[in-house]
Amino acid sequence: MLDAAIGSGRHERPCVFEAFARRLPDSRRYGVVAGTGRLLELIEQFRFGDEELSFLQQNKIVHSNTIDWLANYRFTGNITGYREGDAYFPGSPVLIVEGSFAEAVLLETLALSVLNYDSAVASAAARMVSAADARPIAEMGSRRTGERSAVASARAAYIAGFSATSNLEAGRSWGVPTMGTAAHSFTLLHDSEAEAFQAQVDAFGPSTTLLVDTYDVEKAVDLAVKVAGTKLGAVRIDSGDLAVQVASVRAQLDSLGATNTRITVTNDLDEHAIAALRAAPVDSYGVGTSVVTGSGHPAAGMVYKLVAHHNDAGEWVSVAKKSTAKASIGGHKAAMRTLEGGLATSELIYQASDGRPDAEGRDLIVELMTNGSADARWLGHDGTLAARNHREQALAELPLNAFRLSRGEPVVPTIYR
Amino acid sequence: MLDAAIGSGRHERPCVFEAFARRLPDSRRYGVVAGTGRLLELIEQFRFGDEELSFLQQNKIVHSNTIDWLANYRFTGNITGYREGDAYFPGSPVLIVEGSFAEAVLLETLALSVLNYDSAVASAAARMVSAADARPIAEMGSRRTGERSAVASARAAYIAGFSATSNLEAGRSWGVPTMGTAAHSFTLLHDSEAEAFQAQVDAFGPSTTLLVDTYDVEKAVDLAVKVAGTKLGAVRIDSGDLAVQVASVRAQLDSLGATNTRITVTNDLDEHAIAALRAAPVDSYGVGTSVVTGSGHPAAGMVYKLVAHHNDAGEWVSVAKKSTAKASIGGHKAAMRTLEGGLATSELIYQASDGRPDAEGRDLIVELMTNGSADARWLGHDGTLAARNHREQALAELPLNAFRLSRGEPVVPTIYR
Repeated sequence: MLDAAIGSGRHERPCVFEAFARRLPDSRRYGVVAGTGRLLELIEQFRFGDEELSFLQQNKIVHSNTIDWLANYRFTGNITGYREGDAYFPGSPVLIVEGSFAEAVLLETLALSVLNYDSAVASAAARMVSAADARPIAEMGSRRTGERSAVASARAAYIAGFSATSNLEAGRSWGVPTMGTAAHSFTLLHDSEAEAFQAQVDAFGPSTTLLVDTYDVEKAVDLAVKVAGTKLGAVRIDSGDLAVQVASVRAQLDSLGATNTRITVTNDLDEHAIAALRAAPVDSYGVGTSVVTGSGHPAAGMVYKLVAHHNDAGEWVSVAKKSTAKASIGGHKAAMRTLEGGLATSELIYQASDGRPDAEGRDLIVELMTNGSADARWLGHDGTLAARNHREQALAELPLNAFRLSRGEPVVPTIYR
Repeated sequence: MLDAAIGSGRHERPCVFEAFARRLPDSRRYGVVAGTGRLLELIEQFRFGDEELSFLQQNKIVHSNTIDWLANYRFTGNITGYREGDAYFPGSPVLIVEGSFAEAVLLETLALSVLNYDSAVASAAARMVSAADARPIAEMGSRRTGERSAVASARAAYIAGFSATSNLEAGRSWGVPTMGTAAHSFTLLHDSEAEAFQAQVDAFGPSTTLLVDTYDVEKAVDLAVKVAGTKLGAVRIDSGDLAVQVASVRAQLDSLGATNTRITVTNDLDEHAIAALRAAPVDSYGVGTSVVTGSGHPAAGMVYKLVAHHNDAGEWVSVAKKSTAKASIGGHKAAMRTLEGGLATSELIYQASDGRPDAEGRDLIVELMTNGSADARWLGHDGTLAARNHREQALAELPLNAFRLSRGEPVVPTIYR
């Protein structure tokens, strides 16, 4: 595309691209935007190095003038869009990229990869957080997604309200609180469960979490309290019928005097399994596969569409694909969430050139990148924490119906004005 | 775990870990191993740098002797396992890692991330390849998975039999054949569809593939042949009822004399949609979301378990988790695929120390890494191509039942001897 546009001379036309989702996955009621801060850093760093250029040249993938153009590439345009952590709905203009066709079209794959994956994780994670009803959830799914996606998913889950991750790299690069886990291999390595428990308590003190289901849960709970004392921090159960198991472990811990020892459970949980444990004496959850794979919907389904470009007279022309079910709406748009009494009533999308409608509500579009330079508020550890805090505020605006786990319509309608 | 094991002094015990899947996702009939070549390169490079070590130190995540140990870390053990591209079944010991507990346990997350993601993609892709019945499929899903997973999935789909990818980085780093695509934005950028088609034909000649569903398919097909002539390479349809659409476009192309112009379709295809188009005059497919997300199963579900370790007397002790549904089978195992008349009859798994059973069949375990050094046969472009070729041979051994898309049992039983 880039090569042919350079050939036709249209590559320098000023353009507006927009990333949005046509629908929410699986009839969910809202989505959570994530990936924005990570994406802005990747866009700032996006270059074509000698190895990439040689590959394109030697394989005759593009013409030599395109190689020259790519050698000097960096994105110099403007990006606006939703704050990371905000809710989104069908049609929400989550990311708006302004630049020449050439520089903006090159970002399509990167922007969608990041937003689709991270938003899929955050949207699933937010449902788990509300299902957990204020009990903490740790992200433990690194081994069930690509090795780099693992870091992104720890970050996205944290933005959505998870309390910690087992992915240390997410702690280092994004400031996500980290926690260790002991696997069954640690118990099996030692000559007895008692030796394994003692090794862990020696290393981390009695406040550690002991894994009690390697051999026999009841014996292991007895042993755990014997080794660590009644100050034992927590026991973890990773198998079995959790509702039954948890109640009996709670009773056993209490009878042993370990009334403050917490119970954490981690066996293939998703939002539905978490909700089903609401009445059980669970203190915290660990979630793996289901959160890093978007609980059945591992890609948010956002698309990146050209919505406007300059014509030869330098005037903006709105454009949209017209065929069949995938028709889109052209024009550089803006959005607000209309509110009544602090609660969202609609996602109101309008042409930016028409100006803000006269309605009560919150403007959703913020500046993300100006002339190729990212707004520092959204980057790094601070940006990640800001997104987490914004998610809490933004979801507090949604009607309670948003948090039902069953399938349904988006909790507010999208209105185009 | 590492920190506590260093504390207990058990970290240097020689150990054997094994990666395997307890079951195949969604009652599929076989899985395809992928990621091995990529993983071996990542293991060779796996180090803890100053930034990582400072993070661990400053946040008091591990003790200082563990920091010292990590500073010198590189994997020095042996890895054996299934050839990349081979079929696997429940219990198949896909990867066997031998080393000290400390050095082998550190690989758990990396090994599972790579194998679970890449094998999920390859296992889904292989079903699409058999559904396509020898018609080529291009991988176009980069935008629907994490930005690094996108490269891995292009590679895994190629190993499983896809013919090409739109991900240029997969071409550069793994030798996967690449192809360009024109999106609707390219058509919309130009002042008319005619101008866009002309720009593309000017850049790439008439053998290019023109996207014909931006406005009106019938008019676009007429225009495409008018602009490119009857030597037009292909038209692409990305929306609508494909079976109906394809038949009418074929008739239209033929009536225009473009009898050699191919038709490629790309609208949210998975293996079932591909199979449903078998009777339609489709020449090739492009698949995005469904292949990079494992067609509903984005993680292969492999686990990494300690199966044996030395005791203090230097003897091997088999170990296994005993609790409930997640019980595992201990011991350093090997595997063969028993064959009758060239067709697989079972996945036969045995204790390596017992020696190979006296049965007709193919040994499945090969050397992958020796003393921390990867076998060059499995690496880079050559290793990727070798995996693709091996996949073809390995799947040719499976009974025809393997290629049914409906749910069922694994096509051969796993037998432990």
